[in-house]
Parts: sequence; structure tokens; C-alpha cells
Amino acid sequence: MEIEENPTESSAKPKPFALHGNERLFAFSDGVFAITITLLVLEIKIPEIPKELVATKLLSELSHLFPFIISHLVSFLVLGIFWVAHHNMFAHVKRHNHILLWLNILFLMCVASIPFPTGLLGTYPDQQISVIIYSGVLGITGLVLSLMWWYVATYRLVDDETDPEFVRFVYRHVLKAPIFYFSAILASFLSLPLAKLILACVTIFYIIPNTSVHKHYKKLDQRFNQ
Amino acid sequence: MEIEENPTESSAKPKPFALHGNERLFAFSDGVFAITITLLVLEIKIPEIPKELVATKLLSELSHLFPFIISHLVSFLVLGIFWVAHHNMFAHVKRHNHILLWLNILFLMCVASIPFPTGLLGTYPDQQISVIIYSGVLGITGLVLSLMWWYVATYRLVDDETDPEFVRFVYRHVLKAPIFYFSAILASFLSLPLAKLILACVTIFYIIPNTSVHKHYKKLDQRFNQ
Amino acid sequence: MEIEENPTESSAKPKPFALHGNERLFAFSDGVFAITITLLVLEIKIPEIPKELVATKLLSELSHLFPFIISHLVSFLVLGIFWVAHHNMFAHVKRHNHILLWLNILFLMCVASIPFPTGLLGTYPDQQISVIIYSGVLGITGLVLSLMWWYVATYRLVDDETDPEFVRFVYRHVLKAPIFYFSAILASFLSLPLAKLILACVTIFYIIPNTSVHKHYKKLDQRFNQ
Amino acid sequence: MEIEENPTESSAKPKPFALHGNERLFAFSDGVFAITITLLVLEIKIPEIPKELVATKLLSELSHLFPFIISHLVSFLVLGIFWVAHHNMFAHVKRHNHILLWLNILFLMCVASIPFPTGLLGTYPDQQISVIIYSGVLGITGLVLSLMWWYVATYRLVDDETDPEFVRFVYRHVLKAPIFYFSAILASFLSLPLAKLILACVTIFYIIPNTSVHKHYKKLDQRFNQ
Repeated sequence: MEIEENPTESSAKPKPFALHGNERLFAFSDGVFAITITLLVLEIKIPEIPKELVATKLLSELSHLFPFIISHLVSFLVLGIFWVAHHNMFAHVKRHNHILLWLNILFLMCVASIPFPTGLLGTYPDQQISVIIYSGVLGITGLVLSLMWWYVATYRLVDDETDPEFVRFVYRHVLKAPIFYFSAILASFLSLPLAKLILACVTIFYIIPNTSVHKHYKKLDQRFNQ
Repeated sequence: MEIEENPTESSAKPKPFALHGNERLFAFSDGVFAITITLLVLEIKIPEIPKELVATKLLSELSHLFPFIISHLVSFLVLGIFWVAHHNMFAHVKRHNHILLWLNILFLMCVASIPFPTGLLGTYPDQQISVIIYSGVLGITGLVLSLMWWYVATYRLVDDETDPEFVRFVYRHVLKAPIFYFSAILASFLSLPLAKLILACVTIFYIIPNTSVHKHYKKLDQRFNQ
Repeated sequence: MEIEENPTESSAKPKPFALHGNERLFAFSDGVFAITITLLVLEIKIPEIPKELVATKLLSELSHLFPFIISHLVSFLVLGIFWVAHHNMFAHVKRHNHILLWLNILFLMCVASIPFPTGLLGTYPDQQISVIIYSGVLGITGLVLSLMWWYVATYRLVDDETDPEFVRFVYRHVLKAPIFYFSAILASFLSLPLAKLILACVTIFYIIPNTSVHKHYKKLDQRFNQ
Repeated sequence: MEIEENPTESSAKPKPFALHGNERLFAFSDGVFAITITLLVLEIKIPEIPKELVATKLLSELSHLFPFIISHLVSFLVLGIFWVAHHNMFAHVKRHNHILLWLNILFLMCVASIPFPTGLLGTYPDQQISVIIYSGVLGITGLVLSLMWWYVATYRLVDDETDPEFVRFVYRHVLKAPIFYFSAILASFLSLPLAKLILACVTIFYIIPNTSVHKHYKKLDQRFNQ
């Protein structure tokens, strides 16, 4: 596109013609998110029932699927949270470099891993190891996201206008997730239901913003409204 | 891209450099649609036949696949309808905020769920529960789409030039789908073939626009023709 | 993007702010192509061999996979041809409307169907029915592509500068594929190897452009070089 | 987009309206990469354990998965390397033509093939044939990438400002991969662990840039920082 947009200006200013900005980073990331989130739902398989039993068994087989469906829909929301976070964070990132590319790939590796612990928790919900692996993977994903923001803020890849207060807010906001998740691991040694309650709370916390967060989301929305 | 496009202007005007508009929302949504719609077709599996029976059995095995193929192609069209609706709707949405992002994720969750009831209806076409779940998921998808339009229109995220009459038309047009689908659920208690007839009619209704709809599509096309 | 690009111009000219052009059509199409073409290759499964036999059996099991791998790589090239054709064709399409959206969805339905006949031909290469279904699906895909070009050219959705001679060339060029494929179906009644030879020839014909085609590709390349 | 961006200029200058530049090539490539890299991770399946044995067996079954997980995460990084290489290379490619499109499709065919040898190596890590096929596919992928750069540099599709020294550096840098991979094949005849050590070294070499490479990455980053 850049090739064609201002062809007459090309001689005037030594503008790097072929350069793409962050779009490919976005396209690649959005692709990984879209595939992971979609395949998560596609994991829910239709029960196979012998022909003569279909009429009597189908309903009960479907109701057996219910906990599996719930765990996958919750993970859909968790992936949604990470996508929204990535989306909001990169609205402030004006450029990238080799290291940011690789931090992003590391983050996407975590994202693409989420279906595994999700399936584990959906299949073996009563095992502590399922809760530990699930919380661990999500916690590490959150840590890598925080690391990315730290890198971006420290090496001035953010938009110069970004408010330093906002930078600190994002830190605090993003770091809450791994803290929650790692405390869910600790809680799992005391009580599995308590650990699961923490997992549910993190999800709700990030989807329904509380008052302190609200102010910053407002500001972010205003950016998109300019 | 915005980074590079007008680098000289950066000091003149405090333009948010790193900001992406609706593109990531589009990229993510188009990704989920593309994966769901493609995997729907890929669900059609090649029959496995022992080597010595291939010559005699292959044709009949393939003809057994026929109803399964039909139900998947119909769902391909249904997903096509929802994509076209999303495409047309967002041609009028000039910005987004936290809540619209999440309504969209909710909508995509419904979209990604469609292969499950499709497979169910394709595998157990004679069970009322299949028809109910199929119509239910599609009905809810339509409801969430209507909710999105309501939110976008109410909170002025639409393009200011959008004709109020057009806004009302989209409401009425989009809301017809859930009404149809929920009446298919009611019909399924009377007669399964009737319920399926309703399902077929909704699909045709949205693909082949009738006269009242035509006028609005014309206008939409003109937007794209400017 | 359009939101941000020229924010100062917004009051001056009643420009439809939220409008996206053909990008979503491209994003959706490229997504379907990317998924179909990738999953085609991912269909090639690792042979499962009992532990004690791995050393002796692995090589021979892998060599059994060879015809299956070949048929999938050929289909990869065929999907490549259709993507290149879509890419080149839409370089001349300046706008779209409801009907073009649906013709494109129909085309993508054909594209997403290609792995099925490919797997069929790879699994049962000696059955006439495999050759017929494979040629039939590819032939219909080519027909729908021709239909799209006819629609686009007839209803003036092409770029006004497009040379009428070029329009006619694309017709002839694109229509050759279904003619070839349907003649492969006829040939399959005489001889399967002959039919397969025709299939191989179409693929080579479209990848390695001959002299008459070359001139037009040159012109197309020049467009991209401006 | 180009349709709408400068509608008033259309009469003044015979600009090809409908033309897209490299974006579709990028969208298609990023899609193939995103799907391949995501599905690689999704290959890691949850162990199926009978209900009564879950408590005692789950942990040991998960630990058995460990080598499989490692080989898939390494391939994730390898695909990341190729994506970063494609991303950096095409930052200098200002246009494309028929042949570049096809070289890119050939490259994507190699990329999409990587999960197969990865699974092979993960499933049968002690077989020489696994190491040979794995190194072979990655080596060919690197060769095709080098071929693409050679083509692009020779036929002047690169940005005119691209430093000839940089062009030569990319050659040398990209060609190192196939040389490493093919020497891993040779090494596999002497010692499998040695071959695997080479495979590990290539990966680290490309992710953590050494001093000589660093200078060029710096320059590339500066391009993105302009």
C-alpha cells in the first residue's frame, strides 16, 4: 500500500518504501489468537451413540458434556481477556524491534498452549495437578505480557504521548493476573474449590472493570474516539 | 503504517501514533469466521473402507455422507450470512470501546460454537433435541448481533452520517433471525419437518434479499461505490 | 485507520468514516485459503508403530505415505493457483456489493471443499469415482471463479482503467481450468492414467505461464511496480 | 481502502484504484504461519486415563509427554525464526510479481510441512530417519528462503535504498541455516546426539543475535523507528 499511496512523493523524501509497521505483528498475533480461541470451542465433540440408543441416550450424553463445555467457554473468555490486553497495550506501542518480536512470539506460545491445560482441567477437574498446570500456564502468560510492557516502556517503544501514570497503571493491572494465578496454585494445596473460585474471580475481574480501572479504560476509549 | 506514513507531521500535530482503529477487531473477527467456516467443511471425513471392498463399497459410502454434507454446506451459508451481517454492520461503526470489544468476543464465541450444533443435526437429524440446540445457538448468535447493533447505535459509535432510518432497518432486519429461530424451536414440538423448513427459509431469506431489504442494500453498495 | 488518518479533514468533506473497502473481503478470503492450504499438509499423519518394530518398520511405513504426500502437495499447488488467481483478479476489482460478497463466499466454499476430494484421491487413487469427484470439485471452483469475473466485469466493479482486452483474456484464461477438469472426467471413462495426466497438466499450465499468458502477467506485474 | 482514501484525486492522476500492494501476500503468509505454529502446540494431546486410575497415573502420564512437549516448543521457536526472517526480509521488498508469489507459496509449503517432521522427531526421537527428515525439511525451507532473497535482490524488487552490504549480509545469514541443517544430516551418520546438538545450536544462533548480526538488526530496528 505504501508503494502506491504517495508515489509522487517518493523522489522528494527518502522514505523506506517497502516498510510495514506493526501490521504484520498484529496480523500474526490476531491469527494465533483467532485459531486458538476457535479450536478451543471446536474441541467440544459430538457424542457417538449407537443408532438404536440415540433416542434414549442423546440428552443424557449431552448433559455429561456440560462441565467440559463450561471449562472451554471460561477459557474462551480468558483468551478474550488476553487478546483485549494485547490490543489495548499495542495501541500505545509505536514501533517494534527484534527483541519485542521475540517477546511477542513467546507470549503467543503461551497463548497457543492454553487449550492444553483447559482440556486437562475439563477432563480431570478433580485433580490438583490440573488446577496447578492450568493456573501455571495462565500465570506465565500474564508474566510474559507484563515483561513485554516493561520492555516496551523501558526501551521507549511506546507512543511519546503516553501518560507515565498510564504506564504504571498497566503494570499494576497486568501483574495482578499472575499474582492471582500463582496464589490459586498455593490455594490448591489447601482446597481445590477455593483455587477454582480464585480462577473464576480473575476472569470476572478483567472483564467487568472496577472503578479504578474504569478511568483508564475511559481514556483508552477516548483515544479511539479522537 | 501510521508510524511511517507521515513521519514529518509528527511534531506538528499531537496525533496518536501507535493507534490502530478497528482493524484488529476486524482481523480477529475475520480470523474466527474464516477458521470456523473452513473447519466446518473439513469435518467431512473420507470414509475408511477395507482394501478389498473399496471397489464395491466406495460409492455407497459416499452417498451415505450426503445428508452430512448438506447440513454442513447449509451451515457454511449461515456463517456466511453472519459474516456479511458483521461486515455490513461494521461499515457503519467508526470506533469501538471496551464494551463493544467484549460484545464482539461474545458474538464470536457464538459463531465458533456453530459447528457443534451443526454436527449434532448432521449426525442425529431425527432428534428434536438436535433441532432445538441448533436453532437455539443460531438464535442466540442473532440476539447478540442485535445487542451489538443496539449498543453501537445507542452509544453513538456509528458513523454520524448514518441515516436513522437505516439504523432502525438494521434492527428489524437482524432481529428477524432470532425470532425465526426461536419459532423453529416451538415448531419442533409440533413437527420436526416444519421446524427444519423454517430453518431453511431463514437462510434463503437472508441470502436472497427481498424488495424491502433491497433498497437498503443498494444504499450500502453505494457507500462502497463512492 | 481511516478514522485516524486525516482527522482534520473530517469536517471539510462528508467522507464515510467507518467504511472499510475490500480489505475485509480480502482478510476473510486469505484466511480461508491459508487455513485450507495449511490443513491440507497437516493431514499427513505420522505412522503409529509399536515400539519394538520402530527400527525395522519406520522407513517402509514412511515410504508408503509417499503417494499420499504427493497428492496433497499437488493440491497445495492447486490451491496456490486459485489464490494467485483471486489475488490477481481482485487487483482489478475496485469495489464490491452484496452479490459479489456472496459469489465470493460460494467460491470460498468450493476452496474449503478441496481437501475432501484430495484426501479421497490420495486414499483411493485407483477408483474412477475419486478422479470424478476431484475433477468435479476443482472444475466447479474454476466455474465459480469465472462467474465472479463475469459479474465483476459486467456490473462495472472493475477498475475503470482495466483494459477490455485484459478482461477478455482473464475470461479465457480462467475458463480453461473447468474445461480441462471436465474433460478429465470424460477421460476417466476411457483411462484413469490419462485423466490423471490431464490433472497434472492443468496444474503445470497455470504455474508456468506460457508465452501468450506471459504478456498479461508482465502487465499485471507492471501495475504492482508503479 | 485506496478506493476511499483520496477520492478527489482519482480524476487527476491515473492511479490504479483497486490495486493492493504486498498486503495480501503478507496476510496469506501470516495466516499460514499462525495456523502452523498454533496447531503445532495443539498437537499436544491430553492423556486418556480410565477413571479409577486418574489419581495415581495422571502425573506420570503427563511427565511422559515431556519430550514430546519439548520437541514441539523447539519447533515453535523454529517457526518463529522463519516468521521473523520473512518479516524482516519483506520489510525491504517493495513489490512482487508472479514468480515471487510462487516462490512464497513454495516457502509456505515448506513451512506448513514442519509439523510433520516435528511430530516424527517427537514420536521416534531415537531413529536416524527422524533426524534426517527433520533436518532435511528445515534445510530445504531455509534454501527456499535464500532463493527468494536471491530472486528479490537480483530482479530489483527490493527497496532502492537497501544497502548492498545489507543484501549480502542477508544472503550469508539466511544461507547459514541450510548449511547447519545439512551438516546435521551428515552428523547423524556419526552420532545422533551430535546431530541434535547442531539442531539446538541453529535455533539459539538465530534467536540470540551475535555481535556481527547485531549491527544489522540495529539498522533494521532503526528503519522501524523512523
